[in-house]
Amino acid sequence: MPKQQVRVTFQPSGRTIVVLPHTTALEVAAQAGLTIQTPCGGSGTCGKCRVQFTSGACEPTASDGEQLSDDEIAAGWRLACQTSICEDCVIHVPESSLFASQHQILTETTGEKGEIAPAVRKVYVELSPPTLQDDAADLFRLEEKLGAVKASLSVIRDVSRVLREGDFCGTAVIADHHLIGFEKGDTSERCYGAAFDVGTTTVVGSLLDLRNGDERAIASAMNPQVNFGDDVLSRIEFTSKSSANLHQLRQAILGTISQLIDEMCSKAGISREDIYELTFAGNTTMEHLLCGIDVAPLGQVPFTPAHARALALSAEELTIDVHSHAAAYVFPIIGGFVGGDTVACMLTTRIAPDDGATMLVDIGTNGEIVLACNGEIYAASTAAGPAFEGARISCGMRATSGAIDKIIVNDDLSCSVIGNVPAVGLCGSSMVDLCSHLLTAGIISTTGRLLPPDELPDDLPEPLRRRISVADDDQTQFLIVDDNPDRPVTLTQRDVRELQLACGAIRAGIRILLKQAGIESGDLSRVLLAGGFASFIRRSHAQRIGLLPGEIDRGRIRYVGNASLNGARWALLSTKARQRAEDYARRTRHVELSQDPDFQMQFADAMIFPDS
Amino acid sequence: MPKQQVRVTFQPSGRTIVVLPHTTALEVAAQAGLTIQTPCGGSGTCGKCRVQFTSGACEPTASDGEQLSDDEIAAGWRLACQTSICEDCVIHVPESSLFASQHQILTETTGEKGEIAPAVRKVYVELSPPTLQDDAADLFRLEEKLGAVKASLSVIRDVSRVLREGDFCGTAVIADHHLIGFEKGDTSERCYGAAFDVGTTTVVGSLLDLRNGDERAIASAMNPQVNFGDDVLSRIEFTSKSSANLHQLRQAILGTISQLIDEMCSKAGISREDIYELTFAGNTTMEHLLCGIDVAPLGQVPFTPAHARALALSAEELTIDVHSHAAAYVFPIIGGFVGGDTVACMLTTRIAPDDGATMLVDIGTNGEIVLACNGEIYAASTAAGPAFEGARISCGMRATSGAIDKIIVNDDLSCSVIGNVPAVGLCGSSMVDLCSHLLTAGIISTTGRLLPPDELPDDLPEPLRRRISVADDDQTQFLIVDDNPDRPVTLTQRDVRELQLACGAIRAGIRILLKQAGIESGDLSRVLLAGGFASFIRRSHAQRIGLLPGEIDRGRIRYVGNASLNGARWALLSTKARQRAEDYARRTRHVELSQDPDFQMQFADAMIFPDS
Repeated sequence: MPKQQVRVTFQPSGRTIVVLPHTTALEVAAQAGLTIQTPCGGSGTCGKCRVQFTSGACEPTASDGEQLSDDEIAAGWRLACQTSICEDCVIHVPESSLFASQHQILTETTGEKGEIAPAVRKVYVELSPPTLQDDAADLFRLEEKLGAVKASLSVIRDVSRVLREGDFCGTAVIADHHLIGFEKGDTSERCYGAAFDVGTTTVVGSLLDLRNGDERAIASAMNPQVNFGDDVLSRIEFTSKSSANLHQLRQAILGTISQLIDEMCSKAGISREDIYELTFAGNTTMEHLLCGIDVAPLGQVPFTPAHARALALSAEELTIDVHSHAAAYVFPIIGGFVGGDTVACMLTTRIAPDDGATMLVDIGTNGEIVLACNGEIYAASTAAGPAFEGARISCGMRATSGAIDKIIVNDDLSCSVIGNVPAVGLCGSSMVDLCSHLLTAGIISTTGRLLPPDELPDDLPEPLRRRISVADDDQTQFLIVDDNPDRPVTLTQRDVRELQLACGAIRAGIRILLKQAGIESGDLSRVLLAGGFASFIRRSHAQRIGLLPGEIDRGRIRYVGNASLNGARWALLSTKARQRAEDYARRTRHVELSQDPDFQMQFADAMIFPDS
Repeated sequence: MPKQQVRVTFQPSGRTIVVLPHTTALEVAAQAGLTIQTPCGGSGTCGKCRVQFTSGACEPTASDGEQLSDDEIAAGWRLACQTSICEDCVIHVPESSLFASQHQILTETTGEKGEIAPAVRKVYVELSPPTLQDDAADLFRLEEKLGAVKASLSVIRDVSRVLREGDFCGTAVIADHHLIGFEKGDTSERCYGAAFDVGTTTVVGSLLDLRNGDERAIASAMNPQVNFGDDVLSRIEFTSKSSANLHQLRQAILGTISQLIDEMCSKAGISREDIYELTFAGNTTMEHLLCGIDVAPLGQVPFTPAHARALALSAEELTIDVHSHAAAYVFPIIGGFVGGDTVACMLTTRIAPDDGATMLVDIGTNGEIVLACNGEIYAASTAAGPAFEGARISCGMRATSGAIDKIIVNDDLSCSVIGNVPAVGLCGSSMVDLCSHLLTAGIISTTGRLLPPDELPDDLPEPLRRRISVADDDQTQFLIVDDNPDRPVTLTQRDVRELQLACGAIRAGIRILLKQAGIESGDLSRVLLAGGFASFIRRSHAQRIGLLPGEIDRGRIRYVGNASLNGARWALLSTKARQRAEDYARRTRHVELSQDPDFQMQFADAMIFPDS
């Protein structure tokens, strides 16, 4: 099958993405940085994810027929979660279909509710040249137009020359009352910033036009620090072995950020010099490593971070090569393992303690859990490990081309593969699918044991039974796909154990937080799932394997996409948002799960899969 | 004659200076940074400069006998302007004998009137180590003790390590709400700053203990930029020849400042790392060159400086190697040729526009003139040239060992030499002495002509007549000393012309300023003479040659010493003083002398020496 790529253009943003055919519109939108809302978890039943193909629409699906009128279908409307891309197309995404946080950023910053008010702004000025009668200093003359600004010496050195070369006109670049640049001519149209979500496993960057908040490019990459340890604790341990190792980890992430900046600049056709501010949200360890702050105290009781408040730095201090006086904002931190990414999620979701009990679960290599209720906000972190991101799983991989992203089990198993290519591995969401099905079919016991052939239920359909075998290491394994007989995709006993650990850690964290707040899971009016992985799991399956409490009505579980990146974007566009982030970090109670006497018991208990 | 050096210790400061015997106590005090008041110009007639030798007093002079009681003389009291140092000694300088500005600094900052409130302070803190119950971030814990501070990244990187190495104790270094350092143990006793007067010809530094304002060392050197031009205009022109030249001038002054810092650290027995702040007062060109700011606009009409407000920089931006996060304050500027040194003088003298008409004349390579009267402050600059500092004079030199510092002319000429060594040259004050005497004796005409032997007055005493000859270049010259026949010290016609230009420039400036303010010189209630040179000139002689208006009663002329350095010291010790400096710079009217239609005529007129 020829794997010709197709081009998808989103309106009104104009972002264009090139993908393999048969990718769902939902996923392509996510790749383009658009988080479309899917309250039903992408099952085609809620109709909230509607988008309009203005060209290149595929045939409507059955779900389209149920959720949309004939006129709508004829006009190109489709459900983004159900429709696939078959050819070059243009898709209009209405604001009403975007996840609320993006909608909020756009309306908060461009609409009636507020204005875009980034820390960085450019002002083109035309000054009257000095005369003997009016011989005020150049900078004074400039301040008459701009108000008082503090200028660094190297900018002062530029001002006089640029003014004289440019007939006393020029463009001032101001970041929070600091004059960070003075440019010849009118450059006010070139004013960009980049927001980063620095995850333990994945790093995502977003390039925004600071004048209007438009996203001009998005790029992502693996965090290269995974080569030194796939979770934060192993990286902290790595740094403790040699003083050079901290530097090495720092250089690794700086290299990736630089590469993402290159990629985004190239996509947007701008220069690195046009980027005047950077924002970073990451967990405490990731932020410390990025800043070159020693993480050793994070590896020892009581896991104390060096700083808690946001860092207002220069890109130069971080040794990131953008505009020479660009500012850099690093999100505030709540505790040793609840960092700026969690604060950014809180910012995006506007979680509020007096707004009905709300839980935010950010599922990544660390699982961060926030609970807002009864006037308080609690936050905790739990070491889920990278299983949900496909790491430490025998056939695990990220949700990219070749990954099985959906599994259905009836008498036998069928699955869909991202990019419609031969299956290479399992991503997090299909791991959850599969284990949920295998639990229900009785192939996995509630203790997490993958039953050997001789212990399988008698009524198990034969096609499923044939998939189970005992490997060379005496461990049971389940065959998913053998498109490539040399590299079959299987689920092993060890994989199930990894998933149990990951689920157990998050579930135990949820329980402890609920207990400390004195409420039950049934009292929760909303559960918000954040993180790249979370957007693709099916809620019923997450409940089946005990990742989320079964008592919560599925309709109260909402996906909020990469809320950390959205928070970083928002902080780039609004200094008020930064203030709010600081408020969140300060007022949130940091709960150290390991200090709760119940934690070990809850963790052991949560490792057991629910009965049904 | 053996030129063994003697050691002079001043009390209560404890400063020790090593000098050649026979230097006057006044001069040694000046070398030690103590400006003793000499309202009579050092003639031994006012008795204000009294100091007490607690050991090593010389025999009393006739002036001592007139101004002091026998009991006082027996107790070691002497007039500092008259007594010489003959052996190792200890001199107590009462505050009442210090020039008011130093007195002010000391009392303003340590006495009842106020407190020392420098921008930099050190705070030793003992923190409770974090626990699982109290796991706040290290920096947060520190801020609970210090209040909110902004820390640069490299300091944040240090804090956690230093806290852990030092049992959660350490010393915070805070500069204006910035945490610029965190040091192991209690280092609060080591907290120094250095103030600099960066003159066109001379650079002086003063090392202060920021805890109490004590001066720990003083050092001075020639400004090495004189090799590239001996006044500001020639240096500006030099930079215009090649873009590398600005860098070269900057490196030259930075090298000297570094050398002065070394010298002062060595004298005080401290490390460069113990210096946390620097202040600089200099004229506009000197400040710009120090900062590496292009001075080309200062060389072209309308002579616009790059900035006017004070610069709050880091020593690192200036590339001066003291504490790695030391702050650097550069005085505000009034105009292209009225700079931070003038503001510093205004600060020191507390010149006020509603306090009786007061004129401040800072005599250096540039002459800066400030006039405060009728609610206004005017300031102007006039290019005196370096004649008063001994440059461009055939036998000119600075007022150091070997310089003739005093000349008396009766039937013949007699003079005293600094250090009581063979005379090498003339310093500024003796130039003024000599020309004043030669004018009165009719050897120099009012037009400044040094009369040839055949035109001399008939009644001129023979010993004086013999000193006059015609040199190889047909110019008349006057022999002062021929201790060394190979290098006689003479005054040439060209020297007299240089002095005429220097006097004329200052005198014309004074006239224009008075005219603009609408007052006469007789209306002045005070004339303050600032500058290293000014402290040593005799007022009657300055009036005789027309440097100062003859109409002013001599008693209203006061010496204020190196007021620029004192201003820089004060700014180092008090942020309030900086605010006052900023106020001075903003409210002062900059008068561009060359723009006054009368200036050229006044200048030509002022070049003519007064009749008597």
